[in-house]
Amino acid sequence: MLKFELLQEDKTSAARLGRLTTAHTTVDTPIFMPVGTQATVKTLTPEDLYEIGAGIILANAYHLYLRPGCELIQQAGGLHRFMNWKKGILTDSGGFQVFSLSKLRDINDDGVWFHSHIDGSRHFLTPEKVMEIEAKLGADIAMCFDECAPYPCTYEEAEKAVKRTSLWAGRCKKAHNNDKQVLFGIIQGSVYPELRERSVGELTALDFPGYAIGGLSVGEPKEMLYATLEVTTRMLPREKPRYLMGVGAPEDLLEGVRLGVDMFDCVLPTRLARHGTAYTAEGKITVRNALYAADFSPLDARCSCYVCQNYSRAYIRHLIKAEEILAQRLLSYHNLYFLFQLMAGIRAALAKGEFPSFYREFFHNYISA
Amino acid sequence: MLKFELLQEDKTSAARLGRLTTAHTTVDTPIFMPVGTQATVKTLTPEDLYEIGAGIILANAYHLYLRPGCELIQQAGGLHRFMNWKKGILTDSGGFQVFSLSKLRDINDDGVWFHSHIDGSRHFLTPEKVMEIEAKLGADIAMCFDECAPYPCTYEEAEKAVKRTSLWAGRCKKAHNNDKQVLFGIIQGSVYPELRERSVGELTALDFPGYAIGGLSVGEPKEMLYATLEVTTRMLPREKPRYLMGVGAPEDLLEGVRLGVDMFDCVLPTRLARHGTAYTAEGKITVRNALYAADFSPLDARCSCYVCQNYSRAYIRHLIKAEEILAQRLLSYHNLYFLFQLMAGIRAALAKGEFPSFYREFFHNYISA
Repeated sequence: MLKFELLQEDKTSAARLGRLTTAHTTVDTPIFMPVGTQATVKTLTPEDLYEIGAGIILANAYHLYLRPGCELIQQAGGLHRFMNWKKGILTDSGGFQVFSLSKLRDINDDGVWFHSHIDGSRHFLTPEKVMEIEAKLGADIAMCFDECAPYPCTYEEAEKAVKRTSLWAGRCKKAHNNDKQVLFGIIQGSVYPELRERSVGELTALDFPGYAIGGLSVGEPKEMLYATLEVTTRMLPREKPRYLMGVGAPEDLLEGVRLGVDMFDCVLPTRLARHGTAYTAEGKITVRNALYAADFSPLDARCSCYVCQNYSRAYIRHLIKAEEILAQRLLSYHNLYFLFQLMAGIRAALAKGEFPSFYREFFHNYISA
Repeated sequence: MLKFELLQEDKTSAARLGRLTTAHTTVDTPIFMPVGTQATVKTLTPEDLYEIGAGIILANAYHLYLRPGCELIQQAGGLHRFMNWKKGILTDSGGFQVFSLSKLRDINDDGVWFHSHIDGSRHFLTPEKVMEIEAKLGADIAMCFDECAPYPCTYEEAEKAVKRTSLWAGRCKKAHNNDKQVLFGIIQGSVYPELRERSVGELTALDFPGYAIGGLSVGEPKEMLYATLEVTTRMLPREKPRYLMGVGAPEDLLEGVRLGVDMFDCVLPTRLARHGTAYTAEGKITVRNALYAADFSPLDARCSCYVCQNYSRAYIRHLIKAEEILAQRLLSYHNLYFLFQLMAGIRAALAKGEFPSFYREFFHNYISA
């Protein structure tokens, strides 16, 4: 099941406030969804995520199909029970991972042959097989199996990926049969406006309950990301949720909302945590640096999260230097909290009709680098 | 400050129930103290530890002196503030670490020259210097700087270490000047009863508020550990707390209590967690094993901890195989909880005068290996 209500639209941009209801959750949009690729948002428990405010998390069908196997997860009672997560889950189909992680692939219109990045074993995935996997995982929202073209790629390569993505979307829709789970289509087309337009046309003709914008944030310059996003979202149906895949830097969340996106996901907050980096209202800081060795202030003086209320930069830097896991845990918690506060701020501004000033204020303070 | 009350003594053994009050905490003994060597109990927050029931944790003067440096911790307001821990802390002096971790040491009665295991830098530690370090850290309980003889060692080597430990204990006591912090003496003597006796005599002559039993659990057979412990504890003053250093396997906690020990510490629960092993009422299980791949029961069916209420062996095994940090975090939590429940059971049995039957029941179920 899926319900999407538009609560408010910004007058000066494509930004909108909405409410999304799935089988396990109701969340206000625009929303950020933490990534739990392998059935865990790295270092954190579900309780940590509830505390941070997470309502939907991501998991990855490709990864879970390879390890521990979707039959095992089905046997456990589905992904929610397996990982002890009681709210919404969205499973990415693994299209992106098949093309970015696996080896020696052989792709044709039927499906993809690939070798597991874990043990080299050979697998064949088709749109029908991916629907079967996602049904076993039992997420609230499943994604179509798509072909994600790399960046850069020629017009001809991108066109081929669009064609195949549309073909597979039709087969996914036909194979998907699950009244608790909904299926989103994925728009491809690389950075070519004409191909994006064609992809939107072909996917919307299939009438999905929601649309993801794929093939972005794969290495293209920010200007191209924003320009492509703009031409894509403006053609998507107003009344359905729009999900920009793999995008999550604070400045991109702001731009994405401005251009009409409702849902985001990204590994960045937990990956930056592993690298000893924290978000702050003024921009990112590399807590690992000697600069913070005797800095007894919190990661972000404006942040009210558990980490900022209880720990100093100096302590977290010590944990990083001593290779203590608590460093990753505290930084992951803070970075996710920071993004959730940002999204809450965006939603509050949209509700009050003050998105433009919120947007200006954010960029006045935040130095992206 | 330190207050130790003896609440109850077992009629059939040296086991005793007590209550220990330090500057930051009051705990019932026998107690297990989790180890936070580098100012963090690996993977866990202070809140996790409060939830588990921890009242005193350990930290290590040697490690913290080398990194991040005790001046930095003093500047942060002491170790409690630095690591956000509000209850008791005991700092080990680093005697054991100087002899086990560092390189190219040169030891004489004045002190020890050694090279840091982190960056090779050269350091000289004396009893007075260690007292200064421990004062800066500001733990509730500080340990004397001692010489810990390895196992096996000759009688002559062990005798030399006892002599030096007594000499240094006197200098530590003289140098220690802190009314919030108390100083414990450390008994040495390897596995030689005569030397243990001499060490107890020399240390108790200095009249410390509590005594640690060092130089055990360093590789000697269990029978030797127990026999040495027995001759040592029976000579120690009844009214003062006794702390067995570095011992924490469930069976050793039971034996230690039976032989009159009040305080224990050990890295085992968190180290086993890193190796994918969990304590259960029936003994240890290696959750990493394929045996548990589709086992949807909790780590320990009798355990009421957060982990056992919410996660299966199959899920935790998946996290281990996928190298996800949450595995370590969940196993650390459970293993510590298991030991805290065991100690709570021991204390309840002592209060009811039922320690002997608790002891038998435990060994009836628990297979140590």
